[in-house]
Amino acid sequence: MKVLIAGAAGMLGRKLAERLSSAGRIGNRELTGLTLADVVAPQRPPDHAGDVELLALDVSNADDVGRLIARRPDLVYHLAAIVSGEAEADFDKGYRINLDGTRHLFEAIRREGLREPYKPRVVFTSSIAVFGAPFPEVIPDEFGTMPLTSYGTQKAVSELLLADYTRRGIFDGIGIRLPTICVRPGKPNKAASGFFSNILREPLVGLEAVLPVSPDVRHWFASPRSAVDFLMHAAALDLAQVGPRRNLSMPGLSATVGEEIEALRRVAGERAVKLIRHEPDEAIMRMVAGWPPRFDAERARALGFAAEARFDDIIRIHVDDELGGRIGG
Amino acid sequence: MKVLIAGAAGMLGRKLAERLSSAGRIGNRELTGLTLADVVAPQRPPDHAGDVELLALDVSNADDVGRLIARRPDLVYHLAAIVSGEAEADFDKGYRINLDGTRHLFEAIRREGLREPYKPRVVFTSSIAVFGAPFPEVIPDEFGTMPLTSYGTQKAVSELLLADYTRRGIFDGIGIRLPTICVRPGKPNKAASGFFSNILREPLVGLEAVLPVSPDVRHWFASPRSAVDFLMHAAALDLAQVGPRRNLSMPGLSATVGEEIEALRRVAGERAVKLIRHEPDEAIMRMVAGWPPRFDAERARALGFAAEARFDDIIRIHVDDELGGRIGG
Repeated sequence: MKVLIAGAAGMLGRKLAERLSSAGRIGNRELTGLTLADVVAPQRPPDHAGDVELLALDVSNADDVGRLIARRPDLVYHLAAIVSGEAEADFDKGYRINLDGTRHLFEAIRREGLREPYKPRVVFTSSIAVFGAPFPEVIPDEFGTMPLTSYGTQKAVSELLLADYTRRGIFDGIGIRLPTICVRPGKPNKAASGFFSNILREPLVGLEAVLPVSPDVRHWFASPRSAVDFLMHAAALDLAQVGPRRNLSMPGLSATVGEEIEALRRVAGERAVKLIRHEPDEAIMRMVAGWPPRFDAERARALGFAAEARFDDIIRIHVDDELGGRIGG
Repeated sequence: MKVLIAGAAGMLGRKLAERLSSAGRIGNRELTGLTLADVVAPQRPPDHAGDVELLALDVSNADDVGRLIARRPDLVYHLAAIVSGEAEADFDKGYRINLDGTRHLFEAIRREGLREPYKPRVVFTSSIAVFGAPFPEVIPDEFGTMPLTSYGTQKAVSELLLADYTRRGIFDGIGIRLPTICVRPGKPNKAASGFFSNILREPLVGLEAVLPVSPDVRHWFASPRSAVDFLMHAAALDLAQVGPRRNLSMPGLSATVGEEIEALRRVAGERAVKLIRHEPDEAIMRMVAGWPPRFDAERARALGFAAEARFDDIIRIHVDDELGGRIGG
């Protein structure tokens, strides 16, 4: 099985490439080729046994995307996107990468199939940003995609295209609506959602972190490890049973910031919790008020997708996967 | 107020142009200019007092659309689309006209506004085809757009773009999800939904009509007159009260084919009903089973949109508006 990851240099793309390389297979099919593409050349996964093709290209360039698909991968992971903040700040760039990029990829597959029969599986990373407030207490699978950001709009449009191209038999697609990933590794960033991870990741290594919202803010989370699990499961799943509604809200954990902090206390002790400094930020509080608190995710669970049930596990996964099991400063 | 109708040669575009011309105003603003555009040059509305510009152009041509918007209309009606059957039969054409055409129009407005401040109102005709089965018994306003046709996909994508361009302050948009229009004037056509109108329109002039489905099929209807009412109301409405969810399922009448036929009997007598020949068509029955039976349309009703409450009225409107009040063959 030949696999392409578009957007392989991002946090999730790197982790997915590593998992694929160490697994060496998707379900019961052997991994026979791996192409990693991103706007900057991705790195070679350390455990990978065979050849890996590492490509720097722009998904908003239809010719580049055409050449990529001409390799006829059996499985296409489409993770290429610019993030929410950038898509909001740069209207043109957001639509060019997140919408035109998706369409170029889907069209390249269609054209390749018109040339010679070809029908790969496409796994697309969507986001809970396709939803916008007001919300019911628990968001059902049938809830409308009425986003309140350009990023969410671009993801929702991509979902619609994915479902239609699938229905028309052009490829076999599945859209994975990721919860907010927590604990997100790396440096604190300026994303409005960054604090959900910052208040755990920084204290775990003895550094201060700022909490800009009230502890009763509730949101929807999954670990990076669960996100990679979703993408691996989506690649091996029998999609015939999914039916025409191909975009699925993933399972996750609904938790308040206060519950995050209590979990941190249990895992890392009072000393870690004391490193969180509460500095209310009105702008961030307004934004966060429009974010989804909890999903039903009934369909995804029935299809075998699973995420963490306790915040302690989310923190322990970070400690194991990013800190070599060691807590402290 | 300068008004542009893109898609002015279609059934609804013609009726809208006539209504605008005879009203001479939108709400309390005088109509000072009217531009009618379509892929074939639209006709001049008979009652129009002032100048009318009649243009033949293709919305899938970005330059044509740019020149259209350079006239800086205060109100843009975007009705230009190819129909469901054609969008399903010709993948490229459907996406080119129904998706790229919408995007060209929205982008032309954005570029015009970057050149010199400009923020028109945009009234877009969407469709209940944005929804796909299975449905709850009554479809609520928050139900997801999970279409089962390329046409429905293209309309749902256009809705998402309309909401985002509105949220970003590029224009002030509203999307009007039309029920199935009944009685549709003109000749019987091959659209799968055509029979809903055929079984009324043909017997009303003494001609036979074929009913391909069972009388217990339920669907969602409004008259052409109500559809024009929606478009006039959408142009005059205070949109600030609508909020960010700018695409509204319109009110309509939920009725079974059997109820249609009973109404025909009341309005036109047994002789008309006898002209309906029941010839079950498996293919049409399968398609119709996926069509929405009933909407809540709570938000649209609260905003003052209204449609017929009885099927007898839908038939009488056709007799008045299309047959000069005369029933018979």
